Amino acid sequence: QSSVTIYGVVDASLENIKGTDSVTRVSSDNLATSRVGFRGIEDLGGGLKGKFTLEAGLKTDTGAQDSAFWGRSAWLGLEGGFGEVRIGRQDSLIGSIAGNTNVLGAQPYDDLKIAGTFSGDTYRRVNNGITYFLPKFVDGLSLAAQYATRANGEEVADNDDGKAWGLSAQYLAGPFAIGAAYINVDRQTVPATPGVGASTDEGYLLFASYDFGAAKLTGYYESDDSEIVKAANQATYDKRNVYGIKVGVPIGANFNLSAGVSKVDGVNFTNDREATIVAVKGVYTLSKRTAVYGLFTNVDNDSPAGTAGLNVASVNGAGTGAVPVAGDKAGRGFAIGVRHSF
Amino acid sequence: QSSVTIYGVVDASLENIKGTDSVTRVSSDNLATSRVGFRGIEDLGGGLKGKFTLEAGLKTDTGAQDSAFWGRSAWLGLEGGFGEVRIGRQDSLIGSIAGNTNVLGAQPYDDLKIAGTFSGDTYRRVNNGITYFLPKFVDGLSLAAQYATRANGEEVADNDDGKAWGLSAQYLAGPFAIGAAYINVDRQTVPATPGVGASTDEGYLLFASYDFGAAKLTGYYESDDSEIVKAANQATYDKRNVYGIKVGVPIGANFNLSAGVSKVDGVNFTNDREATIVAVKGVYTLSKRTAVYGLFTNVDNDSPAGTAGLNVASVNGAGTGAVPVAGDKAGRGFAIGVRHSF
Amino acid sequence: QSSVTIYGVVDASLENIKGTDSVTRVSSDNLATSRVGFRGIEDLGGGLKGKFTLEAGLKTDTGAQDSAFWGRSAWLGLEGGFGEVRIGRQDSLIGSIAGNTNVLGAQPYDDLKIAGTFSGDTYRRVNNGITYFLPKFVDGLSLAAQYATRANGEEVADNDDGKAWGLSAQYLAGPFAIGAAYINVDRQTVPATPGVGASTDEGYLLFASYDFGAAKLTGYYESDDSEIVKAANQATYDKRNVYGIKVGVPIGANFNLSAGVSKVDGVNFTNDREATIVAVKGVYTLSKRTAVYGLFTNVDNDSPAGTAGLNVASVNGAGTGAVPVAGDKAGRGFAIGVRHSF
Repeated sequence: QSSVTIYGVVDASLENIKGTDSVTRVSSDNLATSRVGFRGIEDLGGGLKGKFTLEAGLKTDTGAQDSAFWGRSAWLGLEGGFGEVRIGRQDSLIGSIAGNTNVLGAQPYDDLKIAGTFSGDTYRRVNNGITYFLPKFVDGLSLAAQYATRANGEEVADNDDGKAWGLSAQYLAGPFAIGAAYINVDRQTVPATPGVGASTDEGYLLFASYDFGAAKLTGYYESDDSEIVKAANQATYDKRNVYGIKVGVPIGANFNLSAGVSKVDGVNFTNDREATIVAVKGVYTLSKRTAVYGLFTNVDNDSPAGTAGLNVASVNGAGTGAVPVAGDKAGRGFAIGVRHSF
Repeated sequence: QSSVTIYGVVDASLENIKGTDSVTRVSSDNLATSRVGFRGIEDLGGGLKGKFTLEAGLKTDTGAQDSAFWGRSAWLGLEGGFGEVRIGRQDSLIGSIAGNTNVLGAQPYDDLKIAGTFSGDTYRRVNNGITYFLPKFVDGLSLAAQYATRANGEEVADNDDGKAWGLSAQYLAGPFAIGAAYINVDRQTVPATPGVGASTDEGYLLFASYDFGAAKLTGYYESDDSEIVKAANQATYDKRNVYGIKVGVPIGANFNLSAGVSKVDGVNFTNDREATIVAVKGVYTLSKRTAVYGLFTNVDNDSPAGTAGLNVASVNGAGTGAVPVAGDKAGRGFAIGVRHSF
Repeated sequence: QSSVTIYGVVDASLENIKGTDSVTRVSSDNLATSRVGFRGIEDLGGGLKGKFTLEAGLKTDTGAQDSAFWGRSAWLGLEGGFGEVRIGRQDSLIGSIAGNTNVLGAQPYDDLKIAGTFSGDTYRRVNNGITYFLPKFVDGLSLAAQYATRANGEEVADNDDGKAWGLSAQYLAGPFAIGAAYINVDRQTVPATPGVGASTDEGYLLFASYDFGAAKLTGYYESDDSEIVKAANQATYDKRNVYGIKVGVPIGANFNLSAGVSKVDGVNFTNDREATIVAVKGVYTLSKRTAVYGLFTNVDNDSPAGTAGLNVASVNGAGTGAVPVAGDKAGRGFAIGVRHSF
């Protein structure tokens, strides 16, 4: 009826990442993010339930914690006939779809993380969030709405910086799934020129998948848009689009091989920004809880030579060690590892 | 006979705080401080017991940890016929009374926290503490003595800064309760002029309560005194007195409404410092472990206009976001939230 | 078959340490390092097992965490007929012998910690490690090999700084035990003059012990060597040798008294560095899980007067508070405390 459950993931791999230079290293979180969590659910009677999750990310290569210790989840919720309300630090609705590895995935070798999308990176989670999950009026249909009094950082008394809202809808019918999510973040100050003006970060993500049995096919599209107001009232834009396709093939009972290709294009201030990402992932499950895996991702950048290209987003425990690559060159990563869930 | 128990609290609320500016935000810890803890007790035979508690505070709005991760409790103790001795980071004796929400309370909407008292803020807990809880010679009588080799920060080899001692006594007899606690901290350096001279932080807290059944009435008084030695050998004082009264009324089996008014007066260097705090709190328990609540606190400052007034002490996860108010203006906060214990 | 186990140690003591000045304080970790850990083991069938450990050190005197939260252990492993492989943050092989209190010990009152050896201090653990524990071909024989892609800090793309490897062998036959370990760390930059040149940190540790029943006798030797490349291409050396002997005497069923003497000699840049360390330790076990203890360690320095001598290595939670002593003077510490395991 009520008790705390301890759960977690431990993931470690040996990887080689090549950019301008190459590095071979022990790394964390390449298949799944290492974490320890506490969660509980309490039956309050009359169909009402209390719930909470506290979840702490960590790096197995160094033992480092996340910058916000319970930054993966720190929320409590009430669930009943009216649906569910969660309050606290939690997944954004767009991030919830990107982070779901059964759908898309936002780990270091995945395109939505590599491209630095709102769903897979900037707004993967929100601070100060209130989410309302509607009851399932229609079988297979999940609807949710979210508001955050400040998505990143903390509320300041005299402005609306970081106020965010989002929506998501997902529909599952047997082998078929479709979903969409949207996020809108008010930006009173922007990194380039704080305090100069207001702008809006706005992004949406769509996906559809069909499981043919012999293979599961998924297609998706994300579009992010940030207006950057420069000092001389000169507005430029940071836009980013990712469109991709994935195919996952079960081989025998324990092995799953998936491959995807996606195209990133956009504008970063005055430069075009283009890349093609190819990712191959093989996961062999030793048990429900333990798997060994191999990952390969190639990022072929087609931006101007003097700019910074995209590369596999694996970072070390100390937050250093991203391997840079030039805007007109390819970067790639290869990892073999183990993931254990408890 | 022996095992570790995991326990905790998750508290989140939506609040509006008004000072010079106003802010509406998701906030943490307004009814109870969010935390995860590990505790255990071992029967060592012959009436002797070993005990420990490790307790970590956290913010549900951002997932942030406390600056000292296990800063709420990191102690071990031995209990026997002689009483109990605890060693490590723990409640101060004066803080233990202030922090007990059945008696007074030191959460962000409570006067002892808002006024920045020794009991509710500065010396709410002590580092490097050794506490002796005497055995209960008389039914209902609790006596304790505490020494800390340094209450805040860490011991330095060549001075006595932070050496602290305290005493507390509480007596309960049916509906009647009374208590007192004292703390004395040696200050070899003071914030204003480090190294200039020595001073002493000295505070005491008294309370008495009577539960009439239909209502519980509590009266209390705290007096804090810090001598600030200024550069030119000119001694001034930082004094603070809080006297208050509270009434708590159970309404039906699950709802408790309480209201309190308190007066803060003191001297901060050369200025008078005055405020009247009115706090109203309604807690509806959905179960033993889960409650929803509403809080309202108004702080009417009557200090000089150019000084900083007191306001509801709710802070954001990043430690920013306290809402300032002028010394001659009123500040106030309103919160509705959920608290879940596990 | 599979579940997470929570375990830990809580250790607190009152100590007096004397160097140039003297300090009496509440301290943590003097007999054993305070910690909370999560570990699990899963039977994967066919003799294969999955394992993990996440372990977080803490200070009971302040509630502070380690700088890397899970810095004591963050690894996962696979065990089978082939032996065991562990990947992640973990003990170095040389550190594993030093840290084993049944053999040597690397706590604040122990010589291998005080002398700042590779085994007891600098390379007590490694980041980014991959360890292979060979199966036990011969009864009582344990062999292991370790590689770390960077022992301290994090891998950088364009150099080999911190790449480390190590070996260890231990053999137990009834009352007799013998062991050895080696570590080799590539240093592309050195603290004194970063980036000037490459060097190698190289150390080894040997021990042998015999348990006569009435007493257990242990002898050991560690030699560490760091080449320090100075700015003007002038190479000097930081060398350190520790040779010691210990005797442990069980007195009755619950008390163990041990005493050791060791000699530290070496060269720190241009100065000789000499010290004699005498350590006495008494541990009275109240139960399997709880013990009270007394420690005394004297460090008699025989280095030049103007240099920094060695002293008992107890540090406070904030990382401050090591008590310095001159190179030609004696320092010493005395502690009484409690250690509880859960």
